[in-house]
Amino acid sequence: MNWWKVAGGILGGGVILAIGLLIGHFGISKDTKPQWVKELYTDLDEEFIKEFMKEVDNKRIEENLRALSEKPHVATSQADEDLVQLILSRWRDPQIGLDEVKEERYDVFLSFPDSKNPNNVAVVRSDGSTSFTSQYMESPLTDDQKHPDILQPFLAYAPNGTVTIEKKGSNPELALLVNLAKTIDLNGTIAIVRYGGIGRVNKAINAEKFGVIGVIIYTDPKNINDGKSDPHDSYPNSWYLPPSGVERGSFKENFGDQLTPYYPAKDFTYRIPESQIKGISNIPAQPIGYEDAKQLICNLSGSEAPWQGSLGCTYNTGPGFVQTSLFSNSDVQINVYNKRTIKSSANVMGFIRGAVEPDRYIMYGNHRDSWVHGAIDPSSGTAVMLEITRVLGRKLKEGKWRPRRSIIFGSWGAEEFGLIGSTEFAEEYYSKLRDRTAAYINVDIAVFANASLRAQGTPPAQSVIFAASKQEVGPDVTDALGQVKIPGDSSLTVYENWKNHFNRDSPHYGLIPQMHFNEGSVYGSVIHYTGSTSNTLEVKFTNVFTKCDYKKTSARIYPAYHTAFDTFDYASKYIDPGFTSHQTVARTAGNVLLRLSDSIILPLGARDYVELLENYYNEAEKQFLVNLNLHKISLEPLKTAINRYKTASETLEETIQNLKETDETPLRIRMVNDQLMLLERAFTNSMAFPNRLYFSHVLWATRSSSFATFPGLADAYQQATETDTTEDWHMVHHQLTIAIQAVESAASTLELATKL
Amino acid sequence: MNWWKVAGGILGGGVILAIGLLIGHFGISKDTKPQWVKELYTDLDEEFIKEFMKEVDNKRIEENLRALSEKPHVATSQADEDLVQLILSRWRDPQIGLDEVKEERYDVFLSFPDSKNPNNVAVVRSDGSTSFTSQYMESPLTDDQKHPDILQPFLAYAPNGTVTIEKKGSNPELALLVNLAKTIDLNGTIAIVRYGGIGRVNKAINAEKFGVIGVIIYTDPKNINDGKSDPHDSYPNSWYLPPSGVERGSFKENFGDQLTPYYPAKDFTYRIPESQIKGISNIPAQPIGYEDAKQLICNLSGSEAPWQGSLGCTYNTGPGFVQTSLFSNSDVQINVYNKRTIKSSANVMGFIRGAVEPDRYIMYGNHRDSWVHGAIDPSSGTAVMLEITRVLGRKLKEGKWRPRRSIIFGSWGAEEFGLIGSTEFAEEYYSKLRDRTAAYINVDIAVFANASLRAQGTPPAQSVIFAASKQEVGPDVTDALGQVKIPGDSSLTVYENWKNHFNRDSPHYGLIPQMHFNEGSVYGSVIHYTGSTSNTLEVKFTNVFTKCDYKKTSARIYPAYHTAFDTFDYASKYIDPGFTSHQTVARTAGNVLLRLSDSIILPLGARDYVELLENYYNEAEKQFLVNLNLHKISLEPLKTAINRYKTASETLEETIQNLKETDETPLRIRMVNDQLMLLERAFTNSMAFPNRLYFSHVLWATRSSSFATFPGLADAYQQATETDTTEDWHMVHHQLTIAIQAVESAASTLELATKL
Repeated sequence: MNWWKVAGGILGGGVILAIGLLIGHFGISKDTKPQWVKELYTDLDEEFIKEFMKEVDNKRIEENLRALSEKPHVATSQADEDLVQLILSRWRDPQIGLDEVKEERYDVFLSFPDSKNPNNVAVVRSDGSTSFTSQYMESPLTDDQKHPDILQPFLAYAPNGTVTIEKKGSNPELALLVNLAKTIDLNGTIAIVRYGGIGRVNKAINAEKFGVIGVIIYTDPKNINDGKSDPHDSYPNSWYLPPSGVERGSFKENFGDQLTPYYPAKDFTYRIPESQIKGISNIPAQPIGYEDAKQLICNLSGSEAPWQGSLGCTYNTGPGFVQTSLFSNSDVQINVYNKRTIKSSANVMGFIRGAVEPDRYIMYGNHRDSWVHGAIDPSSGTAVMLEITRVLGRKLKEGKWRPRRSIIFGSWGAEEFGLIGSTEFAEEYYSKLRDRTAAYINVDIAVFANASLRAQGTPPAQSVIFAASKQEVGPDVTDALGQVKIPGDSSLTVYENWKNHFNRDSPHYGLIPQMHFNEGSVYGSVIHYTGSTSNTLEVKFTNVFTKCDYKKTSARIYPAYHTAFDTFDYASKYIDPGFTSHQTVARTAGNVLLRLSDSIILPLGARDYVELLENYYNEAEKQFLVNLNLHKISLEPLKTAINRYKTASETLEETIQNLKETDETPLRIRMVNDQLMLLERAFTNSMAFPNRLYFSHVLWATRSSSFATFPGLADAYQQATETDTTEDWHMVHHQLTIAIQAVESAASTLELATKL
Repeated sequence: MNWWKVAGGILGGGVILAIGLLIGHFGISKDTKPQWVKELYTDLDEEFIKEFMKEVDNKRIEENLRALSEKPHVATSQADEDLVQLILSRWRDPQIGLDEVKEERYDVFLSFPDSKNPNNVAVVRSDGSTSFTSQYMESPLTDDQKHPDILQPFLAYAPNGTVTIEKKGSNPELALLVNLAKTIDLNGTIAIVRYGGIGRVNKAINAEKFGVIGVIIYTDPKNINDGKSDPHDSYPNSWYLPPSGVERGSFKENFGDQLTPYYPAKDFTYRIPESQIKGISNIPAQPIGYEDAKQLICNLSGSEAPWQGSLGCTYNTGPGFVQTSLFSNSDVQINVYNKRTIKSSANVMGFIRGAVEPDRYIMYGNHRDSWVHGAIDPSSGTAVMLEITRVLGRKLKEGKWRPRRSIIFGSWGAEEFGLIGSTEFAEEYYSKLRDRTAAYINVDIAVFANASLRAQGTPPAQSVIFAASKQEVGPDVTDALGQVKIPGDSSLTVYENWKNHFNRDSPHYGLIPQMHFNEGSVYGSVIHYTGSTSNTLEVKFTNVFTKCDYKKTSARIYPAYHTAFDTFDYASKYIDPGFTSHQTVARTAGNVLLRLSDSIILPLGARDYVELLENYYNEAEKQFLVNLNLHKISLEPLKTAINRYKTASETLEETIQNLKETDETPLRIRMVNDQLMLLERAFTNSMAFPNRLYFSHVLWATRSSSFATFPGLADAYQQATETDTTEDWHMVHHQLTIAIQAVESAASTLELATKL
């Protein structure tokens, strides 16, 4: 203030000086703030988003995909290691790279087929001669299937064994397993089951309970090929699965490295004995193609099965073959020779330092490993990620952009074996994820079948996905335009098209696109449950924009999934010719990423949980109320808690609406952002699901009962009604307490942090 | 910049204007920052601390104590409820109150003696007549002991029962239990044990293992009275315990409401059946005074015990009485008639909203309930807390002060029954504690015996306690002066006096006062372990500044502890006449509080964990290395992790030293503060100690083995060497992994948050 006093002492000509002073002081004052004040209030730049979207290039995505899917690259193979180097070099490129890049290695427990001793399913006559052996490899319909590194069909971690009459002391006949357990005696049989519905290993675990001694699993053309089983109708003539195609897969319930639960699989880490691994069946299992399955199923005796597939014969249940068949009086054998081994698997991590909130992370990831060439799964997602990092990396290196928050990119290893790379990452980086990560975006299979966006996440993610899907790039962009390209309908935004295809009537918003709220979440599981509280939002893009209209197919997934036919040729001919759907996914996912990384206020809608909570409550009231009353358990406190949540989230929404730059300090704004970031954590409880590896989110744990409400409560209620024991009714009350406390905690997180 | 351009266009007289502009723009620019910019950089005001310390008034503390200890006020009694109202009214006072005040109620499981059916220990002749019955109540040495509401001596939750010959079918003889289990047969005996060492209930749980059927517990004058047992040597003539004094207490291992583990004891909460409560012995137990104990012990037969107390006779082990005694051929009876009940207990909470970081909390608390009058335990601490809130509340209401961070004060209920009020609070406020609380300060027994400060906490708290204890108020303050008042030595600071009495040689700092790092932490347990990750620092003041020099007493605690003699009369005559020691505690604790609430950078020393970690490592290497090598378990990764922690903490220390106001944005400063706040959480692991209620801090869980290293590792090693099974050696490796991962996580939290 000394200058002011000096100036004030000058009378006379000082008037002009005074005017100058006033102008200089008040008129130019904004520029005298420290530079960081300006930076603090730099909000999301919509023009930058459009620029980003314009620069996303479908040709480059195509070239990415070609490079990524050139060779079979199962986890830890040389081809997988080559892709590690490819991604490292892209992210370290001085022109388009990120701030910091590194690879993280874990020694993880894997399982591979023995190439010298191929797994198979056989039919053996009583004299020991073989009348049928399943194919060791898919038919070479293009050059891709001739690649020497193709992994033979198998189920990773499936127990070894040869199930024969000698080993079991009984005659292992074949039975078709279609919810038949209660009508035919399965004891001592080998069951053949189709893919679809519950997970692979769960089919075997269930079958085991009925005495089944081995499981054969196949893909029925009815579920994947719209009924078509003629070779001429399938790839390379169409997108349908050829008769020799076999879906490979992991055969375990739990995710992450199985020898190091809860801890990163480092050299120092204690490894449990293999015998203590849980969530794997005890009986051998092997997948086969529908060509092979047809021979087995169409020769079965027994009565007609309640479910009929598309193999061109009547499906009987067995057990055993009809007397007139080639296989009569024969045994079925499953021969599994898998080799379990510990191998070094890499994650590749890339980091962009945030300008304003460097200790807040937005994550974006996908896995890198495939079962065979993996053009669609996972390379379509990686091709998209590399295009996003190319465009953003260039802006960064040119000094034209730096996100408000830090961004972490991850290329995960060994996902196909059960989300291993990302789980080990979450275990190692637990404290950073728990304390600093606001959201996780996963784009695995970027494009596969339907004609619309498909997004998955927890309810607060809905608003940012909607915002991104509504974005139009501008009139000067001619291809894709961030708009859906469906023959005959070229003018819709992603949002409108999505709403046309999949929608729901929201009590709060009216008709809106249907988001999937973490049903069967994949990466969600990792981020939600690992280490018990490391919980972030997940945004997932799949099933997007193909020429194949979902209305014209009933395929449960794209037909070449996990087979030797998931190749660049297949992807570029039948999934996304021209790669404009990939481009739109890259634009939309990148848009979501930028909104999360650059917005002053995190674009997450805490209020959007209300609908789900009320649905959960209504279901519980509708289904449970009578019996709960009988046992003197009240649902009222749950209703009270949900109302508290509703009020808290609406108040927070108002607070956010009223936040004015000049009125609120950076720490006040951070306070609100932290409430949004920490919301999901408040719903977790590491003691809610004892003995269930990693599950801690009270709303999103999986459930086995059919009640669409809090999973712990739903399952406890199911059990109590079955057993009707005092103990089990106590467990219902216990689980209700857990649900109430979780909602109360979430409400408390959203309420004014400046009060008790 | 428009104004600038306009000004630039005016030539001629514009020169003066230009000068004005320049001056106005550059010379006065600092004042043009928004007000919050100034507030953001307002650091701790040392002058305010001195002002606070000056205003802390010993007379008011004395009056607080008189009001708080006027009546016996066991948890949930009318007198306890009256104190709830007293605290509410103080904190709601318009002149000296806080911003927000409320009471929180929980329905908690308690245990009381039956006043119509007093517990007792008796000796019964074979004809059924009684030759001895322990006193139902302490002798009325002052009017205080005549109060009608005094609770009879008992152990809360001790199982009911009358242990007699009829009930047990054997002759329950008395045995003296002094680590004798291996030398005499305790089966079927009643044991008499003294207080001290392990907890009350653990004595009974241990005794039970040897077949003991009931436990009598007494206070030996050797441990509490420096050997003096003559009534004339004790209160009201001195601070020593009178012969009739009985220490009451809780008789359970676990803390918190026992029917609602992990959840607040609200109306909606599921309550486990009493039969499922763990951590209580199955055998009855009753405390008695040493006057009564003398009759029993001095008549015991058997050989001379290896430990001899101060009851004026030779202590024999028993079992049984000498034939020449009154009690020969008699049985000993324990009669316990405790009543278990659920009652409503209140916490009182007070809140001061932070000016800059309102969503960061510094907590300060103490319990309110006592066993009898509770002048020292806990009212000395509450008297101090009310004086701190009076001085700060006045400054607040006068508009002279508002802390940077929010402050939460808590007056906890039902602590004596096992930390119930604070545990239920932590369970209910779990998410707020986990995400926003930087430190918790607990001052329970503020003054009791020694001539020095005694502080307890985790290592990062050391620096702020040292800083506060070094503070001098100034020359114009004449009483206490924030300086120790020991006869003949009036010039020392709290710090210097502390160092004179209790010190250690630190490799980093040289000779410094000895802080207790959470040994036997009380409130630490609550904050550290509740809900599995809600972990904050604890600063604890006890044992401070009395006229009784610790060098002249070997009392394990102040002699009137938990008896009917812990009264205002006792406190004001023998513990702190003039209340200047209370005053110094209030000054020091308030000083710590203000440093935590007002400093821009949290005054917590992350580097101060290094010494402890290195000590832990060295102990593990020294004790375990040979056997670990045999089992191929390497300690090297632990060393690596500790070195990583050391580097990270030193780098952070440098970063903090280099932080300059103008260079760093508020969010950068917050980043560092969050690293400090979240450090303790990074050491927790909710799966580290399965089946151990609430324990999750990998460094601070209790251990049963004697190795001074990571408690999980220490106990696992102990067990493995005893059993030498493969499984138990696996558990050692598992626990070592947990320790390594915890240190790695803590290092990761401290490392640059702006990197991967």
